[in-house]
Amino acid sequence: MLNFESDYTEGAHPKILENFVKTNFKQTSSYGYDNYSISAKQKIAQICNCPSAQIQFVCGGTQCNQIVIDSLLQSFEGVVCADTGHISCHEAGAIEYTGHKVLPLPNDNGKLVAADLQKYVQTFYGDQNHEHMVFPGMVYISHPTEYGTLYTFEELKALSAVCRNYKLPLYMDGARLGYGLASLNTDLDFEKIAGLVDVFSVGGTKVGAFCGEAIVFTKNNMPPHFDNFVKRHGALLAKSRLLGVQFDTLFTGDLYLQISRHAILMAEKLKNAFIEKKYPFFIDSPTNQQFVILPDNLMEELKKSVSFSFWEKYDDQHTVVRFATSWATTPEAVDQLIKLLPDCGN
Amino acid sequence: MLNFESDYTEGAHPKILENFVKTNFKQTSSYGYDNYSISAKQKIAQICNCPSAQIQFVCGGTQCNQIVIDSLLQSFEGVVCADTGHISCHEAGAIEYTGHKVLPLPNDNGKLVAADLQKYVQTFYGDQNHEHMVFPGMVYISHPTEYGTLYTFEELKALSAVCRNYKLPLYMDGARLGYGLASLNTDLDFEKIAGLVDVFSVGGTKVGAFCGEAIVFTKNNMPPHFDNFVKRHGALLAKSRLLGVQFDTLFTGDLYLQISRHAILMAEKLKNAFIEKKYPFFIDSPTNQQFVILPDNLMEELKKSVSFSFWEKYDDQHTVVRFATSWATTPEAVDQLIKLLPDCGN
Amino acid sequence: MLNFESDYTEGAHPKILENFVKTNFKQTSSYGYDNYSISAKQKIAQICNCPSAQIQFVCGGTQCNQIVIDSLLQSFEGVVCADTGHISCHEAGAIEYTGHKVLPLPNDNGKLVAADLQKYVQTFYGDQNHEHMVFPGMVYISHPTEYGTLYTFEELKALSAVCRNYKLPLYMDGARLGYGLASLNTDLDFEKIAGLVDVFSVGGTKVGAFCGEAIVFTKNNMPPHFDNFVKRHGALLAKSRLLGVQFDTLFTGDLYLQISRHAILMAEKLKNAFIEKKYPFFIDSPTNQQFVILPDNLMEELKKSVSFSFWEKYDDQHTVVRFATSWATTPEAVDQLIKLLPDCGN
Amino acid sequence: MLNFESDYTEGAHPKILENFVKTNFKQTSSYGYDNYSISAKQKIAQICNCPSAQIQFVCGGTQCNQIVIDSLLQSFEGVVCADTGHISCHEAGAIEYTGHKVLPLPNDNGKLVAADLQKYVQTFYGDQNHEHMVFPGMVYISHPTEYGTLYTFEELKALSAVCRNYKLPLYMDGARLGYGLASLNTDLDFEKIAGLVDVFSVGGTKVGAFCGEAIVFTKNNMPPHFDNFVKRHGALLAKSRLLGVQFDTLFTGDLYLQISRHAILMAEKLKNAFIEKKYPFFIDSPTNQQFVILPDNLMEELKKSVSFSFWEKYDDQHTVVRFATSWATTPEAVDQLIKLLPDCGN
Repeated sequence: MLNFESDYTEGAHPKILENFVKTNFKQTSSYGYDNYSISAKQKIAQICNCPSAQIQFVCGGTQCNQIVIDSLLQSFEGVVCADTGHISCHEAGAIEYTGHKVLPLPNDNGKLVAADLQKYVQTFYGDQNHEHMVFPGMVYISHPTEYGTLYTFEELKALSAVCRNYKLPLYMDGARLGYGLASLNTDLDFEKIAGLVDVFSVGGTKVGAFCGEAIVFTKNNMPPHFDNFVKRHGALLAKSRLLGVQFDTLFTGDLYLQISRHAILMAEKLKNAFIEKKYPFFIDSPTNQQFVILPDNLMEELKKSVSFSFWEKYDDQHTVVRFATSWATTPEAVDQLIKLLPDCGN
Repeated sequence: MLNFESDYTEGAHPKILENFVKTNFKQTSSYGYDNYSISAKQKIAQICNCPSAQIQFVCGGTQCNQIVIDSLLQSFEGVVCADTGHISCHEAGAIEYTGHKVLPLPNDNGKLVAADLQKYVQTFYGDQNHEHMVFPGMVYISHPTEYGTLYTFEELKALSAVCRNYKLPLYMDGARLGYGLASLNTDLDFEKIAGLVDVFSVGGTKVGAFCGEAIVFTKNNMPPHFDNFVKRHGALLAKSRLLGVQFDTLFTGDLYLQISRHAILMAEKLKNAFIEKKYPFFIDSPTNQQFVILPDNLMEELKKSVSFSFWEKYDDQHTVVRFATSWATTPEAVDQLIKLLPDCGN
Repeated sequence: MLNFESDYTEGAHPKILENFVKTNFKQTSSYGYDNYSISAKQKIAQICNCPSAQIQFVCGGTQCNQIVIDSLLQSFEGVVCADTGHISCHEAGAIEYTGHKVLPLPNDNGKLVAADLQKYVQTFYGDQNHEHMVFPGMVYISHPTEYGTLYTFEELKALSAVCRNYKLPLYMDGARLGYGLASLNTDLDFEKIAGLVDVFSVGGTKVGAFCGEAIVFTKNNMPPHFDNFVKRHGALLAKSRLLGVQFDTLFTGDLYLQISRHAILMAEKLKNAFIEKKYPFFIDSPTNQQFVILPDNLMEELKKSVSFSFWEKYDDQHTVVRFATSWATTPEAVDQLIKLLPDCGN
Repeated sequence: MLNFESDYTEGAHPKILENFVKTNFKQTSSYGYDNYSISAKQKIAQICNCPSAQIQFVCGGTQCNQIVIDSLLQSFEGVVCADTGHISCHEAGAIEYTGHKVLPLPNDNGKLVAADLQKYVQTFYGDQNHEHMVFPGMVYISHPTEYGTLYTFEELKALSAVCRNYKLPLYMDGARLGYGLASLNTDLDFEKIAGLVDVFSVGGTKVGAFCGEAIVFTKNNMPPHFDNFVKRHGALLAKSRLLGVQFDTLFTGDLYLQISRHAILMAEKLKNAFIEKKYPFFIDSPTNQQFVILPDNLMEELKKSVSFSFWEKYDDQHTVVRFATSWATTPEAVDQLIKLLPDCGN
């Protein structure tokens, strides 16, 4: 059975396991003050060219979004995002659980558009009833987006400008950041992102780690007593070395981007095969997730030998599905998958 | 200055003031156990022909919605409503404050449509990722809606049927219920509503009282220790007689509907004038709120002698505004307003 | 049946009813912007000699505490109070509902002692694990306290000094403030209180109004968009005139203190009778609530003709009960009660 | 430098690392449905002799307590615990964050006493004002307690009986459960615990794992859609294999108890040395945490070569400190520590 269901079907990058073994019996401090965490934070700050970056590691993506958003919003504020945003659709109401409304705007290929944001905020303040409405308090984007698409440097700059104009912190959810930065055509990098956003996350779970997201505050804006805040949300890990060792490994040398590039190469290979075999794409994704529209009978046939993700019904006879590659995808598996794909054109 | 801004610009119906005076020095129990509250509850249960109705009075509309919804939802559930619903737009995130997501569906003239609800719930359960999404846990409608429109008996029956099919409690926000029931063409009444919904509110604030909404559970479904729940939300009034006397007055004889009918007559008179003078309506409202589209220059002119509510921008040169009548609106004021209205047709 | 159960068994002071009638058909703005509310706020600011006071009216006491505390605490902070404090015992968890811990300290006759507070905060910061604990974020006191006792000017100054030293906002719950200020021996007044605390409430419900508490921020420290915050908690009244007229009446002339003084006179009369008849006091209260220890058989006997409040079991054969007077208590009722009281000494 | 600061200073048991490596490239399902998690759950159910046990793994202890408690309480209820309980003191208000009050009772050597619980609940329901108070909704204990002490079978049975009588779910926080079950004199085991409590946790973090607590519902009482509930709290791990492999390893053979026994042997060795050298104990702990009272000058001296935990100030010249052993403590380290300890008696 081939598995292209998601980018979290394998364990951790072997280098991480190696370092677990190597460091296992060293005694360390806990709750984020172990040497591995400290070292990892320095390396991430360095790759961002942001020496003042304030960093906290947490275990999961929803947890990360929940904590960042709850920590930056005033109680009367909500978080603006694309209507396809992960926080709006697939986090079981974790943001609302913190008492805050998610304020969805229309998406353009999964992305939030600066002009839409500008118009929304203007309309809000122009509405004479706005004191009875939820104030926009920050902006959430993900990169890559829920549909694998990417912001260009210009698009991100434009969003950042609107945010600054209205004093809205801009948060980038980077659960799959590696795959975004390793994409063939992106003009963004860690440093540019750190410059344009107020806080972003660097995803480990989907990019080589067992678990872990790094929350990076880039503007000396980590809220006071953030450890306590994180603990109160149930997210402060006692043995923080688990996260420290993983991120220290991923950010030693070029490992994080190097393994991301591999996933992109695998995805491109697969994408080219889809093109060649005339599979219609649901969206044009330059990253490790490929969304194609399958006739339902072909989908059922494929399911017998490959696992992939249901995304949504396209119409009565077609379904949108997702094929994901990762740092662990082998060229052999991609070749096997390609062989299994019949021509789809008519 | 004429005032048609809202239906809460005057105090309370004179009969209420009379009863305040009459009962003022009688000593009563508190927290809902005074005789006036008990009597008022009986009268409301009677008009609903629902002897087992369980009733609680609270002071305000947002409070009422917040408490009903938070009390009926499981923690993993959200509340479905029309995207124009008051809870979705104009309650400052009071529902999200309780930790629950508002799940908006497209509206049809401010109303939620049974078929849309059915489709939404079906799609939800058909989505293979729904365990990561917010479960629809109840349905919110208002009657009249945010745009003054009304459900027909058939429409409400259809919504109720979908709700029962999926075991979703149906809640009707009746902040302006009197004006809905007094509308000239409605085929709904207290009894039919009590039969079709699981809980509804009877608005006092906008229909003759100083303040107060009656929460009516119709299916023996008031959550246990509801007093305590209400107190925990800061909504349990010590001198509950304030609410008891008001509702007891409004539901003695036909007062609640009688004063509502007056508001409807005033609104119809005004509506006819708008029609005659060729004012375009934003929506066709059969209740006490009339929404017309004004050219901005005419709007500015009118503002000098009449106050009304901004609703939303229509286009660059037009604005949607609301004129509201109430139990206290005098025929003279309506006449004066009509005189002030120039012809609008071209 | 005589009723000394609480200070909220009657309606509103007749002057309030008079003003309801007088103003009833004047059309006003809503949500706190009506002229009566504006006028009342000015009068309260004036009596406090605090022209910059920022004031908001809400309907009830628990609501008031919940909103003030939630609005001033950072998310990682809790509120310190005496272990007998209303918020700690008798508000159904309304503070915890907002996500904040109540941090109880031992009480001295219902009061919080500056030295205890000082020691608590010092111990907290001296605890090497305090980053895993709830930070003290503000201090709650009530005046009169839950047991009717009063802070002296010196005691309040000492508390205020500790609070300032640690930058802890000091909040005084004045649900029965009138009865405290009208007490025969107090050396506190509105101005001294406004000077020493950061925010306090002026209770209407128990002092002549149907409902209503004024929240008074004295240090230009009302949180931004407080209306919105209040609405989100379900506590923003549409017809704010209901609160405005009441407080405007109570603060016209000396009415608030004048009617409070009456209650104190009635309480003193009763207290003297208790002393004379050798009833043991549970606590020595200088305000309108008197706490005596009754042998259970005497209690049962008395219950036949008087209602009063159960406070707590004293021992197997005795119970602490409360007799409360109010602005509405008549000398005749007190006389009747006194006549009913047998001698208690042996 | 010797480290006896806590039982989470090392990484994971080598067998766990071995299994990480062995299983690393197997592709698995996620969110709790991987084979390792399924297998681990079966093994835990088996050791409890509770085939119907419903189990969920989460990453951390505070998270675990927060989720269990929030999932079992009705909104008007709080959780009863000893005043020394972890949830009451050292979780940064994580329980209150979920909206629930912690209701502390006096402790007996860190333990909750059945008779105290019984009296508390009786007094609560006997209080005529209890509808304005927080209802006791469940009971929290930890085993070992915050002070390393243990419940006997009889004590737990008595607590369980009171809980059943009042329909209060009984939850045992087993963050250090292994060390409790491996203690030399305990008469409890997995099966007895599973029988007497409604839900308990099996701590991994402090007993050989990198992270992880197993939540075990023993009475078919896991709340519906618990995955969704867990996700909403930010605690559902995507790569659940991380937890699955760890618990599957710990519960293969006797590993969990075997490594716990080692920690106990090390602790007993140390305890005997303390006794011999006349160190006064703060409490008599039969588990892996030893609490001794050190003269401050001796404490400062020791700190130069050993790290241990500050617990609390004992008096002006003494401090309570904690020495913890773990599965990873070597006999050599204990010997070295013992050598460093001067005689303490005089």
